[in-house]
Amino acid sequence: MPKKVDHEERRQQIAHALWRIASTRGLDDVSLRDVAAEADISLGRLQHYFRTKDDMLLFALRHINALADTRIRTSIEELAATGGHPPTPQDILRACLTGMLPIDDKSRTGALVSAAYFARAIHDPRMRTDAQEGIPRLAAFFADQIRTAQQRHAIDTTRDPEAEAMLLISLADGLTAYTLLDVHTPERALELMNQHLDRLFTPATAT
Amino acid sequence: MPKKVDHEERRQQIAHALWRIASTRGLDDVSLRDVAAEADISLGRLQHYFRTKDDMLLFALRHINALADTRIRTSIEELAATGGHPPTPQDILRACLTGMLPIDDKSRTGALVSAAYFARAIHDPRMRTDAQEGIPRLAAFFADQIRTAQQRHAIDTTRDPEAEAMLLISLADGLTAYTLLDVHTPERALELMNQHLDRLFTPATAT
Repeated sequence: MPKKVDHEERRQQIAHALWRIASTRGLDDVSLRDVAAEADISLGRLQHYFRTKDDMLLFALRHINALADTRIRTSIEELAATGGHPPTPQDILRACLTGMLPIDDKSRTGALVSAAYFARAIHDPRMRTDAQEGIPRLAAFFADQIRTAQQRHAIDTTRDPEAEAMLLISLADGLTAYTLLDVHTPERALELMNQHLDRLFTPATAT
Repeated sequence: MPKKVDHEERRQQIAHALWRIASTRGLDDVSLRDVAAEADISLGRLQHYFRTKDDMLLFALRHINALADTRIRTSIEELAATGGHPPTPQDILRACLTGMLPIDDKSRTGALVSAAYFARAIHDPRMRTDAQEGIPRLAAFFADQIRTAQQRHAIDTTRDPEAEAMLLISLADGLTAYTLLDVHTPERALELMNQHLDRLFTPATAT
């Protein structure tokens, strides 16, 4: 009797193949046939799951974003378990932003898949939907953390939570780009991000 | 007698064709043949000027960056002519950062060519040289402006000029990315940039 195929597993196998290609030569001139070869399945089978390269790229992006989410959540839970107190908004924002920078193999692969998505989405409005829904959702979460910190007098109340949230996200994005271009090291990107974050968490009324 | 060909003009004609393609469908699957057709010259003639797509992309990037430089210099000179005093470091940084955001057709085309360059450079170390030389040069110029402002007590001396310079550049880059993805408008990107810049120019010792 033929083994029952686990469709979700097969889709993940394809996503992993796409990540490997994204991590090495990039997805620019990659065909469905190339991905099928990398995933070690036939082109026909691959097309059973994904009709186009864009479909595949969106699945790979969502899947790798979900994994990053899980890693970030785990690091926040570990903070809670070891810190002896619930994580502060600063702990949470630091964990999220650290998770967004390409500082290890997993987050670097994520950044390269995001870069491939970016290259496609700027020329195709249909591809932009993921960013247009995902980024404002992340910004709203960041803004909530900032508001909580303001209530606790950890951030100056003159700061606009929505604006600060989008500044943090844009900064993570730009620092990531210059890390991928080897303009600075991952460590330097993290240092710069933390410097900006620490200043946000310094009420101006110190004197 | 055949007209003498102005080689620099021909190269610019090709760069303009590349910009038009970068502004519309992007350079992902574009061949040298496509660019020759857009520039209205033969493939053979195009290859006389550029052997590869990467050579062409680098020329188009450098050329559009030089044009952006000129636009920014002009806007600083206009400030000097109309302001009645030499432009301050804040004026200069604002003019540079505004010129880096995709807020009109010219700067938008520049941002799309940069995006095409980014997509190639992250997978090809040889392509990265331009960013690895250009960004530190820009950061050094920004850091000089910040140091001058510190000497004039316009920026707190606890700020690290090199770090602040790289934060400004990374922020401009991230805000540009989210403008190209239609996550926010160009006007919002400019507003967020100015908000960050205004805070940099607010000494913390106000009270």
